[in-house]
This record gives sequence, C-alpha cells and structure tokens, in this order.
Amino acid sequence: MTDGLSMVLFSGTTDKLHAAATIVAGAAAMGRPVNVLLQYWALDAFRADRIDSDHGLAFDAMTPGSSRPVAGAADIPWLETFRMAKELGDVTIQACSGSLETLGFEADRLDELVDGPCGIATFLTAAEGGQILFI
Amino acid sequence: MTDGLSMVLFSGTTDKLHAAATIVAGAAAMGRPVNVLLQYWALDAFRADRIDSDHGLAFDAMTPGSSRPVAGAADIPWLETFRMAKELGDVTIQACSGSLETLGFEADRLDELVDGPCGIATFLTAAEGGQILFI
Amino acid sequence: MTDGLSMVLFSGTTDKLHAAATIVAGAAAMGRPVNVLLQYWALDAFRADRIDSDHGLAFDAMTPGSSRPVAGAADIPWLETFRMAKELGDVTIQACSGSLETLGFEADRLDELVDGPCGIATFLTAAEGGQILFI
Repeated sequence: MTDGLSMVLFSGTTDKLHAAATIVAGAAAMGRPVNVLLQYWALDAFRADRIDSDHGLAFDAMTPGSSRPVAGAADIPWLETFRMAKELGDVTIQACSGSLETLGFEADRLDELVDGPCGIATFLTAAEGGQILFI
Repeated sequence: MTDGLSMVLFSGTTDKLHAAATIVAGAAAMGRPVNVLLQYWALDAFRADRIDSDHGLAFDAMTPGSSRPVAGAADIPWLETFRMAKELGDVTIQACSGSLETLGFEADRLDELVDGPCGIATFLTAAEGGQILFI
Repeated sequence: MTDGLSMVLFSGTTDKLHAAATIVAGAAAMGRPVNVLLQYWALDAFRADRIDSDHGLAFDAMTPGSSRPVAGAADIPWLETFRMAKELGDVTIQACSGSLETLGFEADRLDELVDGPCGIATFLTAAEGGQILFI
C-alpha cells in the first residue's frame, strides 16, 4: 500500500470545499502525495470567474436548529487552504475531462490552482494502492 | 491489499449517479472487481418503476452562478454507463437489505441491473483489503 | 494494510447519520477498530441539546417520486446504532477541532458519545494504512 491520498471532489458548497481542503492540507503536511480530481460542482466552483464568490452551504445547514459558521460562509478560507496545501506539499488538482464536457466549458476557464484536465482512468490508475475519498 | 473497489452508493440524484457510474466503469475497464451497495436514495433510484425518470441534480446545483449540464439532467447517461460497466467487467450491484426495510419495498421491485439484496456485514467483509468509497 | 476503518462524518441529516452508523456498527461487529471524526453538520447533530431532534433527510429525498422512510425520519435509530457500536466494539468518535471553531462552540456541548476533540492531522495519521470514508 502507498501513502498517496486521492480525492474525487464533486461538491461545490463552501463547507464541503473547506472540509476537503483541510484534509488535503493535512495529508500534504504529512508529506503524503495528494491527487484531487474535480468533478461537477467542485469543478464549477474552481471556474476563475466565480471562485471568489460565495458558494453557500450544504442542504444540511437548513435543518432546523443547526448552527451557523461563525464568520459566515463567504469567509471560510477553503481556497487559501488549497493554495497553502499546494505550496507546502505534493498536491495535484486536476479537472475531470468528463465533467468538463458535461458542464460545457474548457479547462482554460479554471483558476490557476488547477493543473489541467485528467480522465477518470488515469486518475484511478494513479490512485491504486492508496486511500481514496469521494467528497 | 487487493485491487477491488467497493462503493456504498447512497445518493440518488442524476449527477452523483453519473459520477458513481463513471468511477465504476473506469475501474471495471481496468479489470478491477467492483462491488456496489445501494442504500437509500440510490436504491430508490434503481426502482424499476422510476429508474428512467429524471432524478434531478444535487443541491449544489442551486448555488448562484453555477453551470447547467449541457444536455439537461434527464439526458445524463448514468444508467447506460452502469449497464456498460457490468457488460465489460466484474461489477456487482447489490441492494442494502437494511435500506430496503427502511424504505419499505422488496428487492423484486428493482431494475434487473441489481443482482440482489446484501447485508452490510457481508458487503464490508468483501470490501476488506481494497479501496472503498461512499457516494 | 491495517483493518482499521476511519470515517470523516460531515453530514447531519438522519439518513446519512443512519448510513454511517450502520457501517460503523458493521465494522465494529467484525472486530475492526473504527475511528470517526465529526465535522460540520454531523458535529452539529451531536450537540447534546439537539441530538434527539428530527434531523430531516438529505436533499435527494425531495426528488419527485422518491420513497419515504417507513417509520418517518424522526424514528430512524441512528443514535442507538452508534451507541450499540460503541458498546460492542472498538469505536472512537471525535469532534474535529477545526469544525468546532468554525461553528463556534466547545466540545463540552456535545453528547457523551463523543470522546473529545481531535485535529485533522492526528486523525489522518491514525487512519493511515486503513480504509477511509467521507460521508
């Protein structure tokens, strides 16, 4: 078994992006290679023209009696955490080529944190022998 | 470690079913054995009487400024992708017996792609030593 | 590879808490050590002052034509299942310290099933070499 951590990042709300970024940064700080594949709403959240927008919260936040993030969803530092993770460790962030087709835009519209497009087969091959998460 | 991929498939929206099917098909094409356990809304999506319906999109799609799938949610080929994965590789799709009880229907109401009911303990035992995902 | 099962439990709706509890109980019954890290809405669901409330269902339940849980969401025994899992096996449930900060409360407001706070690095280190899930 390798110490690589692979993550299919599908969700595009601030809270899940934050949870994902925290895991990526934690693994990167341990010296583990991390490989993230952006699909659907996470891919859409990394579009350069809306990456700095408020991406809202998961539906769970609407359950009666639930807490609110202290600083407000728009201030949760998920993007900074991804940036820091890439600076301090071996982190790759790629755009699922199938999801690019489904959503109808090109990889050049993504933030520069994204390293390029990647097919699912290539991603799964790189992920073999390590841990894998779907968020 | 084995090369098996196990997946607890809980979600029932078209986009997540599509993401799951893509991963299953990719792993199957690599020759890896794949074991899917349908729970809750994914199980409900495989009911024969509604499997061809529009299953909508995840809540994330409602974030302001998000893209729309090019062809519309109803046209995303998640079911065909599962069918193809089963044809080309070693893919088992089972219905969580606990979820069948919770939702109150029998396995015979499910699409023929589903191989039968399975308990969580049996599923986890088969999954040991391989990668596992929750979607 | 170890037989440990680690779970980042993020979601706070009854159905996902139930799915998570079922997996935890199944693994615990097999004698596997299980390590759960509560983040965001799952953490919020374990607040002592609302753990017995109705935590609703995932957004997927709103898809047209979807089934309803037989007994109603409020009666799904996710908490009892976690309790039983802790009694019968080696199960640790910890509160993500980052999520505690984000939601603005202290670990002493959590139900006694929660063993205490834990940072992501400590969690990931303990999870190495085993299976890991994000729910």
